Amino acid sequence: MNFASDNWSGAAKEIAASLQRHSEGFSPAYGDSELDHDLEQRFNELFEKEVAVFFVGTGTAANALALSSMNRPGGFVLCHREAHLIEDECGAPEFFTSGARMAPIDGEMGRIDLMALRRGLDRFDPSFVHHGQPMAVSVTQATETGSVYSTDQIAEIAQLSHQFGLPLHMDGARFANAMVHLGVTPAEMTWKAGVDVVSFGGTKNGCWCAEALVFFDPAQAEQLPFIRKRAAQLFSKTRFIAAQFHAYLDDDLWIHLATHANEMAVQLANGIKLQGDSDSPESLQIAWPCQSNELFVTMPKLVAKKLEAAGVQFYSWPVPSWFAEKMESGRGLYRLVTSFATTTDQIDRFLKLLKEC
Amino acid sequence: MNFASDNWSGAAKEIAASLQRHSEGFSPAYGDSELDHDLEQRFNELFEKEVAVFFVGTGTAANALALSSMNRPGGFVLCHREAHLIEDECGAPEFFTSGARMAPIDGEMGRIDLMALRRGLDRFDPSFVHHGQPMAVSVTQATETGSVYSTDQIAEIAQLSHQFGLPLHMDGARFANAMVHLGVTPAEMTWKAGVDVVSFGGTKNGCWCAEALVFFDPAQAEQLPFIRKRAAQLFSKTRFIAAQFHAYLDDDLWIHLATHANEMAVQLANGIKLQGDSDSPESLQIAWPCQSNELFVTMPKLVAKKLEAAGVQFYSWPVPSWFAEKMESGRGLYRLVTSFATTTDQIDRFLKLLKEC
Amino acid sequence: MNFASDNWSGAAKEIAASLQRHSEGFSPAYGDSELDHDLEQRFNELFEKEVAVFFVGTGTAANALALSSMNRPGGFVLCHREAHLIEDECGAPEFFTSGARMAPIDGEMGRIDLMALRRGLDRFDPSFVHHGQPMAVSVTQATETGSVYSTDQIAEIAQLSHQFGLPLHMDGARFANAMVHLGVTPAEMTWKAGVDVVSFGGTKNGCWCAEALVFFDPAQAEQLPFIRKRAAQLFSKTRFIAAQFHAYLDDDLWIHLATHANEMAVQLANGIKLQGDSDSPESLQIAWPCQSNELFVTMPKLVAKKLEAAGVQFYSWPVPSWFAEKMESGRGLYRLVTSFATTTDQIDRFLKLLKEC
Amino acid sequence: MNFASDNWSGAAKEIAASLQRHSEGFSPAYGDSELDHDLEQRFNELFEKEVAVFFVGTGTAANALALSSMNRPGGFVLCHREAHLIEDECGAPEFFTSGARMAPIDGEMGRIDLMALRRGLDRFDPSFVHHGQPMAVSVTQATETGSVYSTDQIAEIAQLSHQFGLPLHMDGARFANAMVHLGVTPAEMTWKAGVDVVSFGGTKNGCWCAEALVFFDPAQAEQLPFIRKRAAQLFSKTRFIAAQFHAYLDDDLWIHLATHANEMAVQLANGIKLQGDSDSPESLQIAWPCQSNELFVTMPKLVAKKLEAAGVQFYSWPVPSWFAEKMESGRGLYRLVTSFATTTDQIDRFLKLLKEC
Repeated sequence: MNFASDNWSGAAKEIAASLQRHSEGFSPAYGDSELDHDLEQRFNELFEKEVAVFFVGTGTAANALALSSMNRPGGFVLCHREAHLIEDECGAPEFFTSGARMAPIDGEMGRIDLMALRRGLDRFDPSFVHHGQPMAVSVTQATETGSVYSTDQIAEIAQLSHQFGLPLHMDGARFANAMVHLGVTPAEMTWKAGVDVVSFGGTKNGCWCAEALVFFDPAQAEQLPFIRKRAAQLFSKTRFIAAQFHAYLDDDLWIHLATHANEMAVQLANGIKLQGDSDSPESLQIAWPCQSNELFVTMPKLVAKKLEAAGVQFYSWPVPSWFAEKMESGRGLYRLVTSFATTTDQIDRFLKLLKEC
Repeated sequence: MNFASDNWSGAAKEIAASLQRHSEGFSPAYGDSELDHDLEQRFNELFEKEVAVFFVGTGTAANALALSSMNRPGGFVLCHREAHLIEDECGAPEFFTSGARMAPIDGEMGRIDLMALRRGLDRFDPSFVHHGQPMAVSVTQATETGSVYSTDQIAEIAQLSHQFGLPLHMDGARFANAMVHLGVTPAEMTWKAGVDVVSFGGTKNGCWCAEALVFFDPAQAEQLPFIRKRAAQLFSKTRFIAAQFHAYLDDDLWIHLATHANEMAVQLANGIKLQGDSDSPESLQIAWPCQSNELFVTMPKLVAKKLEAAGVQFYSWPVPSWFAEKMESGRGLYRLVTSFATTTDQIDRFLKLLKEC
Repeated sequence: MNFASDNWSGAAKEIAASLQRHSEGFSPAYGDSELDHDLEQRFNELFEKEVAVFFVGTGTAANALALSSMNRPGGFVLCHREAHLIEDECGAPEFFTSGARMAPIDGEMGRIDLMALRRGLDRFDPSFVHHGQPMAVSVTQATETGSVYSTDQIAEIAQLSHQFGLPLHMDGARFANAMVHLGVTPAEMTWKAGVDVVSFGGTKNGCWCAEALVFFDPAQAEQLPFIRKRAAQLFSKTRFIAAQFHAYLDDDLWIHLATHANEMAVQLANGIKLQGDSDSPESLQIAWPCQSNELFVTMPKLVAKKLEAAGVQFYSWPVPSWFAEKMESGRGLYRLVTSFATTTDQIDRFLKLLKEC
Repeated sequence: MNFASDNWSGAAKEIAASLQRHSEGFSPAYGDSELDHDLEQRFNELFEKEVAVFFVGTGTAANALALSSMNRPGGFVLCHREAHLIEDECGAPEFFTSGARMAPIDGEMGRIDLMALRRGLDRFDPSFVHHGQPMAVSVTQATETGSVYSTDQIAEIAQLSHQFGLPLHMDGARFANAMVHLGVTPAEMTWKAGVDVVSFGGTKNGCWCAEALVFFDPAQAEQLPFIRKRAAQLFSKTRFIAAQFHAYLDDDLWIHLATHANEMAVQLANGIKLQGDSDSPESLQIAWPCQSNELFVTMPKLVAKKLEAAGVQFYSWPVPSWFAEKMESGRGLYRLVTSFATTTDQIDRFLKLLKEC
């Protein structure tokens, strides 16, 4: 019963098979194989637009290189207070930009609040060098708390960003989960809503190690080949990424994998709700609606310990400021993540165990 | 007939199979799985010493992070003029050290000349800040021109480096090829000769993407976990690297692969010599002795064009300064690389073709 | 009537005279003149301890180089939310540390709250690389809002920092003003209370351009000569800084200048209080007690405009979060700064004008 | 008898007096005073063009910030092998560009050889990321060995640089000395010959600490205000630089000071030649013609020791590769620098001493 993270699962079998299939023979290194070039073409089709796409090894690399391409001296990136950029990348965005700052913006449910963003932007007077200057806005889709921006919400943030002359970056580590939830196309969730650059993640959704950095205006990516190589992110045997992504996109595998992960989260949530007894202080409570594959629940800390002791894997989570007043003392906040590899059987066993706790 | 580079081949079948085998199930991310920890233990055994080992995605990353851990303000790294660090990493070593410089040292056959190194070190007066200060010495084993340092040569360089208070780094992108040539153990080629840190490459020798940064004094690696994560080189599904390296080390696979690659280079050299007619200006000549899996030859540029037209893949190479006076006009210098995937059949076809040219 | 900032004044006449006096003749460049070395000796005496002292051109440089010497990958510096490091240095601390982050800590009156600091430090689990790691704590003395830490408060912060293995930096841009207020010695306000490094500012207190970076453990400054040169802060004609600082320290000039500046602030505050009519919504109110040479007042925005129109120079100030609920609508927060160059006449004219507004 | 360096002298008396004169009263900080703005206007007049000018504290800062504004990932700056950028700035150019490399170009007399520059540029294939990419060319005027580029030579280098899409930077630490030697205008020696940015030095020619970074296309300087502030080079009491530069430009003082320095060098050279006896192995020999205020001589090492013992200050100098074969064994190369503060009396005393040695 593993709900620790979607990166605790391995690779989807179609992706493993593709790697196997492409392991023989010779082909040009450093992104110049036919497989690489075909994949670039597929990204154009995927996004219904000519894009500039760069493959890298980690989501942190995709994010950091995206920001590096938007760099300004004394620059600020405005992003949600709980963004991966701020909380979980050990200063990589700051390092790759030689010192840009991540400016935290508040907002409920892990989404940037539009008014808070405006206040954040209004602080900067372009003629006052001491404060530095804004250089980009970044949203995470799905967010760190499992919620999803609607395309309208993205469009509003994009409009405001562009009004201040700033590009909009999307951290799409869970791009597929969000897209499946919204029922839209890749284009609709990105450039049609105003997104300029997206970190398109494959790893959490069934790849081993496959991340793509996609620029919707190829002219803005002019320096990326050098930025990527200098960042030690240009792999020699690039077909090992290409082979993964080809299988990922073949026959909509990525959508099937994300749909499954999201459904497992719904199934888990429904099971918990069904068992929940709002009168019982012992019971698990859904903290807020799950819109992707991350379900947040509250439960007494003692119950969490029992579940862990029984072999369930999951993480306790820091309480976001916007949820703080809803937390009752003695209870903790916990994250349960589903993935392509989650099975109904695992959920049933978890729910059964829950009943016994 | 592909002699372009050892990174044009894919993955050895045992390595592909290992990835397949480990693609199912859940295990902790970010280096905390049993497979990861077992692998760390294997590196201790491999080097007959407790080491600190860090897995990264590219050889450039291994090199750059090694130097980053040795960083000094205004620092210089002394390495051979043709080193990969200088020539082929697009400034990654400089970037990850926030501006350290790569100081070129001369030497025949791609090896640092000891007297030239001493002159390079003597230039710096520790009390004169304007010049900056040396921070490390780096050797490439095997070198960029296919030669190999003897363990004595390494020991002499290490001794000189340590005398100046500098750690010695080894870029071991072709570690296995050099070791097989020397017929020594991993320990003998590294810490027993005075090497402090090695970039232990697996990718060129049959892995997809597997590089290890090995510190022989774990205390010197204290900050590496943070350096690696900040560099966007901490993969989430780390077992995809671990699975490769386990298969690589199982049953001495890595030694067998390198032995094969080296033997193919010998076979190729012998075939060329056999055909060579020192009186014929048309014939291929071995430029200098091959000690690993990179064979350098000279031939008339027209012959090279014919070979390429016939489907042979290989690179022309800039003439090193120490070889310049041996080059005859009209001829070019070319590199032929063999790998685990090179077959006798390919060599025979090449030699047959050569006869016809 | 200029209360804009203490850096709007020029140089104290003794300091200008010293520059004049030392402008002739030859002496070694880059810090090697007798004047330079004598000054280093004077800093030992000033702090009653052998220190390592480095002269630089700006307060931002002193701060950034101090942090640079304490750098850790993925590092955080914990400092007050309103600290100059965060608000007014255009990312210099982040740039010179290649991406360290400034983590804002709350606290009333511009002083770090000890419990908030502990919470900030407790967030970091040394074994969890994703969050990064703390690298230093920094206090500003006097603070950005004119308040002063007592030596006990400094000692408490130092103790907590050291408990977490972190050095304590003091941004002493207004060191003299704070010291005069406390009536303590330089040693008591710094290393005797646990401070490890201080940015000792001379510029705001009557020099042209003279800042000293003082390390109380010279061993920690070993790399500073290179860090400073690499930062383009090693001046060639260093005696132009030394000449300023000699005059600054001669006959306690620096103490007299700061005493005067502080007294002018008291005189200004008393004058305003005397005129203030707590019943009148029109009157100026002292926002919080002034402990150095920065006086903060609230007044109706219309009154501020009238004063400006009449030729008074001063800045409006962003309302700190800890003062927000005390602000009445229609009023603004303003900063009035005195300096060595402020005269009783200026204050009288200001108070007279105030009466007329 | 001080011929150590032009930065061993203090400040010209007119400049010291100007600082004295401007030390009183209040004026806006951070470059916003009337004195600052007037000075910007004077630079427009000086260069007969609307320029963007930024004042900084050191020549290293001017150079490093110039290159920072031209930065490209994986970037190379092509400059002479003996350039200050490479030899004497402790990695500041590399640091401020986050890792750009200084690529050494050969050339006699300290001047970049045009054919060598072309070879250096031809090495880079824009589509090959591994090598990195050129980002700028930099010339030093006067050079480190006291020679001066003619305006035609500058124009040829500029044309070649622009042909490769690269801006041309001039390190003008001894701008005035070179200009006086050529007898041209500031415009003729810079933008009229194709220079894009110049580090216009005042310090070596009689200021305390006054350097200006001048962009001939203000659009290219758009980010400079942020770059300078982030680099800790925006001084608060900027009038201390402005006051120096105003005096420097008043009544052509800077030209008079440089003319004097150059004349002193000629007088020194003539005196040495007159005494020299080409048959005597003991005698001083002018190494190459002096075109500014730096005279290079060879002499027996024993003679140099005698001179030093007699109180003459000067530096021994590393032998440039282009001069190596002219050096006789037992002799050393020495640099004698004159400045605005050198007097005929000092030279006479030196020559007298020489006769006695």
